[in-house]
Amino acid sequence: MSEDENARHTEKMKKIKAARDRMMATKTEEKGLIIVHTGTGKGKSSSGFGMIMRCIAHGMPCAVVQFIKGAWPTGEGTFLRERFAAECRFFVSGEGFTWETQDRERDIAAAQNGWEIAKTQILDPEVQFVLLDEINIALRYDYLDIDDVVGFLLEQKPPMTHVCLTGRNAKPELIEAADLITDMTLVKHPFREGVKAQKGVEF
Amino acid sequence: MSEDENARHTEKMKKIKAARDRMMATKTEEKGLIIVHTGTGKGKSSSGFGMIMRCIAHGMPCAVVQFIKGAWPTGEGTFLRERFAAECRFFVSGEGFTWETQDRERDIAAAQNGWEIAKTQILDPEVQFVLLDEINIALRYDYLDIDDVVGFLLEQKPPMTHVCLTGRNAKPELIEAADLITDMTLVKHPFREGVKAQKGVEF
Repeated sequence: MSEDENARHTEKMKKIKAARDRMMATKTEEKGLIIVHTGTGKGKSSSGFGMIMRCIAHGMPCAVVQFIKGAWPTGEGTFLRERFAAECRFFVSGEGFTWETQDRERDIAAAQNGWEIAKTQILDPEVQFVLLDEINIALRYDYLDIDDVVGFLLEQKPPMTHVCLTGRNAKPELIEAADLITDMTLVKHPFREGVKAQKGVEF
Repeated sequence: MSEDENARHTEKMKKIKAARDRMMATKTEEKGLIIVHTGTGKGKSSSGFGMIMRCIAHGMPCAVVQFIKGAWPTGEGTFLRERFAAECRFFVSGEGFTWETQDRERDIAAAQNGWEIAKTQILDPEVQFVLLDEINIALRYDYLDIDDVVGFLLEQKPPMTHVCLTGRNAKPELIEAADLITDMTLVKHPFREGVKAQKGVEF
């Protein structure tokens, strides 16, 4: 590069850094977020679980309510219960995916029981982060009323408490209400090539 | 619901379950996967960290190499080093984002040092899962050669070892080689409303 080009490059880098510093200086607010992980790709629950582990790492008391996957033991569930019972409260409401139980009434009762637990945890001033794992499935099938759930989050959630809701097909009302939304988009999945779900990756 | 509706629901769920069982019966293969988390949304690193915690939960020895974020302490890094040093090996290669260091040569040296560590961990028969956090940033800026990395993963990775590569702008060569790819797509982010990065959520 010529001296001229070098000078321009340095000027450009300085401008980028200054713009970034100005941008970050406007980010001063702290608030409890409504976080949504949706989409058909992998990572919705494992990212929620990653945030729970972060909370534990920071000494932030947290809670997990599993709405659907409760029927089968997951690595993270056992781990949280055995190793971090003091740091994270862990609840299971569902009995498995609905095509496993084939009993709509029982699924509805389980989802509603889960939602009662969820509300208690969200309202508890001790708890700073609540993960509602796969609640979107219960909302999609109308096992829970979307207006009840969104209304509670907007009106009764303590201002500094974070709530993370996971599961594909997040309802538009929830998308509208949420602060931070990620769509985990499936690009390629080994199921298509006959590879089964594996320890450490899927569960 | 009427009895009729309930019966229809049960019939429908039975069909779904049968189809799902047939589908799952074809998924018999186990193999070490090349996993990619990319996209501009949240959850790429936290989902990788969630998988690391799953591996620890299952007693699968694992390793993390952080390529870019090393300059600032993260909840998960401290946590892994303090609580799970025996289960997970944790390495840091990068010194921060490039507009902070403004020293390309030092960034390249750090990335290449990280890649040497990564190769050693991947080749180690003890290690079953390796997370290469933010390596896509190093690849994007050509701090690492994409053909070297993809060639190594396809030709030298032990068949049962999982490797997860995270970071936005994954290169097409890596997308082509990977088994399991998720694009974390940004739908809404509170930065836009002046909310800063918060403990437990972003770090």
